[in-house]
Amino acid sequence: MTISQRRARLRRRLAAAELDAMLVTDLVNVRYLSGFTGSNAALLVRVDDDTPVLATDGRYVTQAAAQAPDAELAIERACAPHLAGLAAGCGVRKLGFESHVVTVDGFTALQRTAEGVELVRAAGMVERLREVKDAGEIAILRLACEAADAALRDLLDRGGLRPGRTEKEVRRDLESLMLDHGADGVSFETIVATGANSAIPHHRPTDAVLTDGDFVKIDFGALVAGYHSDMTRTFVLGQAAQWQLDVYQLVADAQRAGREALAPGVALKEVDAASRQVIADAGFAENFGHGLGHGVGLQIHEAPGISASAAGTLLAGAAVTVEPGVYLPGRGGVRIEDTLVVGSENAPIPELLTRFPKELAVIT
Amino acid sequence: MTISQRRARLRRRLAAAELDAMLVTDLVNVRYLSGFTGSNAALLVRVDDDTPVLATDGRYVTQAAAQAPDAELAIERACAPHLAGLAAGCGVRKLGFESHVVTVDGFTALQRTAEGVELVRAAGMVERLREVKDAGEIAILRLACEAADAALRDLLDRGGLRPGRTEKEVRRDLESLMLDHGADGVSFETIVATGANSAIPHHRPTDAVLTDGDFVKIDFGALVAGYHSDMTRTFVLGQAAQWQLDVYQLVADAQRAGREALAPGVALKEVDAASRQVIADAGFAENFGHGLGHGVGLQIHEAPGISASAAGTLLAGAAVTVEPGVYLPGRGGVRIEDTLVVGSENAPIPELLTRFPKELAVIT
Repeated sequence: MTISQRRARLRRRLAAAELDAMLVTDLVNVRYLSGFTGSNAALLVRVDDDTPVLATDGRYVTQAAAQAPDAELAIERACAPHLAGLAAGCGVRKLGFESHVVTVDGFTALQRTAEGVELVRAAGMVERLREVKDAGEIAILRLACEAADAALRDLLDRGGLRPGRTEKEVRRDLESLMLDHGADGVSFETIVATGANSAIPHHRPTDAVLTDGDFVKIDFGALVAGYHSDMTRTFVLGQAAQWQLDVYQLVADAQRAGREALAPGVALKEVDAASRQVIADAGFAENFGHGLGHGVGLQIHEAPGISASAAGTLLAGAAVTVEPGVYLPGRGGVRIEDTLVVGSENAPIPELLTRFPKELAVIT
Repeated sequence: MTISQRRARLRRRLAAAELDAMLVTDLVNVRYLSGFTGSNAALLVRVDDDTPVLATDGRYVTQAAAQAPDAELAIERACAPHLAGLAAGCGVRKLGFESHVVTVDGFTALQRTAEGVELVRAAGMVERLREVKDAGEIAILRLACEAADAALRDLLDRGGLRPGRTEKEVRRDLESLMLDHGADGVSFETIVATGANSAIPHHRPTDAVLTDGDFVKIDFGALVAGYHSDMTRTFVLGQAAQWQLDVYQLVADAQRAGREALAPGVALKEVDAASRQVIADAGFAENFGHGLGHGVGLQIHEAPGISASAAGTLLAGAAVTVEPGVYLPGRGGVRIEDTLVVGSENAPIPELLTRFPKELAVIT
């Protein structure tokens, strides 16, 4: 799908919502709909005109022309108010705006320039488009997940995960290896959590030393062309105790149940429940305190959220994580996470993008 | 200054503004006033009570108790609306909120819970406090700048900046060396711009190869304990042409003029003018298209902005950058940037934090 086709989808939705135009101010949404990646921008998409107007400031004249060749450029520091004024001037009567992004002060500025225009809340409209990935996006996500897979394999092959090393050292090696294997950067700060730290869902790496008998939980991702991968694997060092084998098997079963529930049209809360029930049945419901997963793409966390309180259903072509965990405070925890693309009605099996093995690896 | 003293300063300002309390929702401001670094939080600071209420969600119970031991904790996913309701319940009549941070949808949620409470715009109130760094903050900024200095020195000593290498390779080495020299991470994506690319103020590293005769502009910083350093140095490879010597000398003169203008009480626009005039006098006004500098601290860009349009004056103890540049499209550009701490009335000389030499280094 071309970027122009993405805008065409939005324009159809605007028409259905009886809006004349949309003022896009979220920078990720601007990128999705124009290709422009600068740090100050807004985009005006009109129902009856395929050419959008991209506003940015003087720093980005060259970059904007190169990245968004099919947009009309407006060079102006106060991007959003400028475009609101422009919309007013070209006959827009109902203008959608991103009420989940525009601040109270920013809204006041829009009201000043959008004279005679009705500003209509249109929160999440572009994010819902972004939920379904097109073929080009999926190809990039594959590359990002492959870079992460290869880096973790390489880390293990080099003996990078062994007693005596610190969480910070492992983080650094793994992040460096992702760059070696083709990543432009990291998706987020890598989590390396050893021993009791592995019971902290979002632990930040410390100087804690990896020790025989530890769980080591590693949650990381590679960034490729703006797209994020996300994967968690948990290892045991030296020898696995029975409680570790049990917890690992439980999480692996729950994760498989979550993956197997991924199909287009299934309620998001049912996907969460399919995995959560496995953990609850084993008596560990209270040790799994977060949602099952989330969308992944231009952001590391995006729509849809997969949790017990989520509304809506899975869409064909959505890229999501499945990442149950069981955390035993003071002892350790296990999380297993994959990124997958939801299949279609004709081919409902999801595509697994993070292919690193999930069998418990005991590293000796 | 302790974190409690920071809140005491805020409470005095709230009293002066006739507010009963402030709802802090910007996460950096929450960190500044509580110590808490989680990704979902809000803080309620009341004029008549030294104990703030910190709201966060279930993932952060342990972390919040450890990082913000003197705060009352409220575990609730919808942090800000929860605290607004709590404020209503404890007699707050006028509640300041961060209108430059709270979104239109977020404000609607506050209105629902803050029954009977007047929500008053208080944009930038905490940012203005953060402008003046306390001794602990300056000590950390020194460490961050030292890590960056040492990394650049090390890069040169290892021959890491030489013809044949790519911008991306240099970036990666420099970022890795910052970690070696004590950084927790990088302040922002390092800019390495060689040859004509150096004329692009915010160039992102590419596979472009460093070549004899190039300007190489490097803008980078180290992150230590949440604080950012920021420094730019420009080198020449091989042999410097006369135009390069001239441009470099001009920017160096302008940068010194900017540094010499840094004193408490001076208008921000005068600081900008002191440096900009040097460049304008040489006929290059149009080749310096950005502001002279900005505050640095828990964010890489924070108050005050130092530019031709800035209102206000420099405060004693503010940490700011001074970074003029001259950019010649298609040929190359020079930027020289330091981070400094503004002195006091009794000792007006600013403290230079980024101590790497600024004489033109021709690397052969």
